Amino acid sequence: MAQSTVKAKMVDHRGRRLSHVAPDGSVRMVDVGGKPVTQRRALAQAIVRLKPQALKAIRQRAAKKGDVLLTAQIAGIAAAKITSQLIPLSHPLPLTHVDVRCQPRGTDTIHIECAASCSGRTGVEMEAMTGAAVAALTVYDMCKALDREIVIEKLQLMEKSGGKSGRFRRAEKATLPGDKKRP
Amino acid sequence: MAQSTVKAKMVDHRGRRLSHVAPDGSVRMVDVGGKPVTQRRALAQAIVRLKPQALKAIRQRAAKKGDVLLTAQIAGIAAAKITSQLIPLSHPLPLTHVDVRCQPRGTDTIHIECAASCSGRTGVEMEAMTGAAVAALTVYDMCKALDREIVIEKLQLMEKSGGKSGRFRRAEKATLPGDKKRP
Amino acid sequence: MAQSTVKAKMVDHRGRRLSHVAPDGSVRMVDVGGKPVTQRRALAQAIVRLKPQALKAIRQRAAKKGDVLLTAQIAGIAAAKITSQLIPLSHPLPLTHVDVRCQPRGTDTIHIECAASCSGRTGVEMEAMTGAAVAALTVYDMCKALDREIVIEKLQLMEKSGGKSGRFRRAEKATLPGDKKRP
Amino acid sequence: MAQSTVKAKMVDHRGRRLSHVAPDGSVRMVDVGGKPVTQRRALAQAIVRLKPQALKAIRQRAAKKGDVLLTAQIAGIAAAKITSQLIPLSHPLPLTHVDVRCQPRGTDTIHIECAASCSGRTGVEMEAMTGAAVAALTVYDMCKALDREIVIEKLQLMEKSGGKSGRFRRAEKATLPGDKKRP
Amino acid sequence: MAQSTVKAKMVDHRGRRLSHVAPDGSVRMVDVGGKPVTQRRALAQAIVRLKPQALKAIRQRAAKKGDVLLTAQIAGIAAAKITSQLIPLSHPLPLTHVDVRCQPRGTDTIHIECAASCSGRTGVEMEAMTGAAVAALTVYDMCKALDREIVIEKLQLMEKSGGKSGRFRRAEKATLPGDKKRP
Amino acid sequence: MAQSTVKAKMVDHRGRRLSHVAPDGSVRMVDVGGKPVTQRRALAQAIVRLKPQALKAIRQRAAKKGDVLLTAQIAGIAAAKITSQLIPLSHPLPLTHVDVRCQPRGTDTIHIECAASCSGRTGVEMEAMTGAAVAALTVYDMCKALDREIVIEKLQLMEKSGGKSGRFRRAEKATLPGDKKRP
Repeated sequence: MAQSTVKAKMVDHRGRRLSHVAPDGSVRMVDVGGKPVTQRRALAQAIVRLKPQALKAIRQRAAKKGDVLLTAQIAGIAAAKITSQLIPLSHPLPLTHVDVRCQPRGTDTIHIECAASCSGRTGVEMEAMTGAAVAALTVYDMCKALDREIVIEKLQLMEKSGGKSGRFRRAEKATLPGDKKRP
Repeated sequence: MAQSTVKAKMVDHRGRRLSHVAPDGSVRMVDVGGKPVTQRRALAQAIVRLKPQALKAIRQRAAKKGDVLLTAQIAGIAAAKITSQLIPLSHPLPLTHVDVRCQPRGTDTIHIECAASCSGRTGVEMEAMTGAAVAALTVYDMCKALDREIVIEKLQLMEKSGGKSGRFRRAEKATLPGDKKRP
Repeated sequence: MAQSTVKAKMVDHRGRRLSHVAPDGSVRMVDVGGKPVTQRRALAQAIVRLKPQALKAIRQRAAKKGDVLLTAQIAGIAAAKITSQLIPLSHPLPLTHVDVRCQPRGTDTIHIECAASCSGRTGVEMEAMTGAAVAALTVYDMCKALDREIVIEKLQLMEKSGGKSGRFRRAEKATLPGDKKRP
Repeated sequence: MAQSTVKAKMVDHRGRRLSHVAPDGSVRMVDVGGKPVTQRRALAQAIVRLKPQALKAIRQRAAKKGDVLLTAQIAGIAAAKITSQLIPLSHPLPLTHVDVRCQPRGTDTIHIECAASCSGRTGVEMEAMTGAAVAALTVYDMCKALDREIVIEKLQLMEKSGGKSGRFRRAEKATLPGDKKRP
Repeated sequence: MAQSTVKAKMVDHRGRRLSHVAPDGSVRMVDVGGKPVTQRRALAQAIVRLKPQALKAIRQRAAKKGDVLLTAQIAGIAAAKITSQLIPLSHPLPLTHVDVRCQPRGTDTIHIECAASCSGRTGVEMEAMTGAAVAALTVYDMCKALDREIVIEKLQLMEKSGGKSGRFRRAEKATLPGDKKRP
Repeated sequence: MAQSTVKAKMVDHRGRRLSHVAPDGSVRMVDVGGKPVTQRRALAQAIVRLKPQALKAIRQRAAKKGDVLLTAQIAGIAAAKITSQLIPLSHPLPLTHVDVRCQPRGTDTIHIECAASCSGRTGVEMEAMTGAAVAALTVYDMCKALDREIVIEKLQLMEKSGGKSGRFRRAEKATLPGDKKRP
């Protein structure tokens, strides 16, 4: 098969491509050496759905010590910092900020948001997504004795800015109060 | 407030408790030193939902080299092995097996399953969940240039066996063909 | 110089030796393959001395959310689990339990204790010491904006059991209430 | 309780605050994205106190191969490089230099100093402190068979420069010969 | 193509197979859960070839402090302990012993040997190979300013015992004096 | 012995020196704080020699899924990113690109090349060398059941550019088609 054909197939109708796959069938880390250093920011979200009784137990502790949510927050921050050790083709990025927030919402969900920032040559989506994922996994871990059917839902990117592809904002709004309201 | 009251509040109506939270408000790693060593197994799942065009690009590659899915598989296995470095209160476990499978299903989803096994004193749910999560994040990473609205859904435990709480099997069935059919 | 002389010099008057140094001048990991698997436990301590104002700020938060101390606790547990990645000649050990406690004492100290347990062929002193050290460093990190002269003092082993050298208990008593009183 | 009251409580009489704790009770990584990149340097110290016989054994080896002290030095450098993986709210920093020195002093102490440098947006105190701590723990590990009562004392910051808070120099002087005398 | 044909192709004329590749084209960690726990041992070797002048510089230091070789030794031990974090389909193994030795031989080579032991369900070849490789890379790193054409040669397994495939001993002999002669 | 004599001995006849060894017998990380940030690039190579039958098994898979070689590629990229955690005196570098390629050549070798790039104060040779080494070890791991006598040969630097010592290019040519031909 001709190489041009293979190339064509990795590109969708708008000309966007699977950036980590080379025509010769190998995978690759994108070379970002030629990109300018800009301020990057990304916000990701995860929703943990659990039984009302389990959430109640967390809320009661949270009113006092916040143990489960604080542990999840710390785990998310720590994971965001080592994203490049978890995601094979991601770049190491010197994060300047990671913020993970975990809040019970309604009777059966905990909403988790992870914001990551960096002054760098490539985006911080993976850092935000990884931080949200590991915070959610930590909630799962600490509550699994109470509820074995916990589901982590809607792990997704909410916002992103700083790259040449411009600002992205998911139509669906972020559910936790924004960063700006934080002191 | 009396200590017994605090204790009561961490326990749900069936007497199950937030196992990682101590009455004094600190968190803790459960002491598993007294538990017997048994054969543990867990199976977790994640579903990655993406645009049909993005999935098509992956399928075309997969038909040839399987790059995205194979990279996700390897990332999931590697992450499962370092679960205790990601989840603060989880125990280090000498895994004897991790198996991650990633398959496109229908026009817009990739189903990911991670099975983990160990001969140990505590369960391997977190290893299976972490492996599935990081495999899904890797698919996200490799496809995000094609589709920025990818959602990771239903990251959840499907089956678990080997602990004193008995076998758990989620009512909803695992969607990928079972382990037994693998050679 | 004859090899026997070199050997003699590494041994103190009771015949104990620098276990990690070989006569040929290289260092070594002790071979524990021939030792029996026994239940090991160790307890280490660190004292963080800081200005009364800084401690007051922590206490006020602790009364509400416990942020600094809980973060230190989690960091200590996480560090204990990766001790063999930090201490060059230590053995990887499958810890069955790590417990870190942090308590303000008097007007200007925080006492930290880390207990570690394992069913293994060698002791868990290093895990307990490392957990206490990193918990103390985390308190330092979170309070350094309030007090740049914080000192970490008396990072030391308090108790140890399970090895052939028998039980060790430092004459000076552990200052935090014992494990047995925990639920 | 009004938010302003909570805020007030985290601030000491000079207006300095617990920088890693948010008023809503969560912890946070400080956002350093807006800080200028400057040359940062920090020097930390740890003192290991051990029995004269144990120190004598080390000195004799050191006169020949320097095993214990060189191993400690390497462990300290390695730990300084992964500080952001150990201290939950610290930032990843691209260190340009780490220097750990370990010297026996008198009959029963080993003095350890760790200097760290970086061109970055936040200070390198934690890197220096972590390097000194892990070097001290490594000395402990390698000598614990000779002396179980080793104490790590005075783990503390000696000097710091490069941030907006200006140069810090502890009144008590660093005990090892300065960097400038090194070739 | 029929599945049996694919299977056939992964097997050589003696019936041995690519153990980490499944017929469906995915890779896998071998399930060692059913294997017995036995005493495992492996010995690997690497030879670093460098210019006589560079070796002379190392020898002169080695006669005094052994810096390069001791640093390489420590790096090799540390790497062997995290083999399962480097080699995607390897199993985490609780090593009971790692021994790395580095010796100048002749005018232009340094011979490195890494022995690893474990009581486990699978072999420790990868630990021995990884330890030898990273020790060799460390020699390279420390000498590259003196000689940019250093070559790491003959990174290979010398001996292996403990598995069901029986003892393996390479015809070519290990060049460093054996373990038994060490005290 | 006078210090100047010691110094003299670490320097070869061209005045080059063991950059990581200090005259006082300790090792050190070179201080690169004063070096300019330039574009750095390095290319390293490893050759894996294995039995023709083993290579044939890989080729057959490669023609279909590329499993062994793709796994090796991913492992090499991941390892290059954590080089500073493996090589004691290397600096953490924010890599902008890593590219690992693995190709069967002739009847019994696999050629591996790792290219690394960075905008930084010191070279990326160690990243390229480490990536090539771990990719080769991964091939070894996945093929060792087919051939226990696999040898990793000629792990060496092929090219380097960007430092003050100028461009280096090994006389022996790189055997895989150059980067420029990649799309």
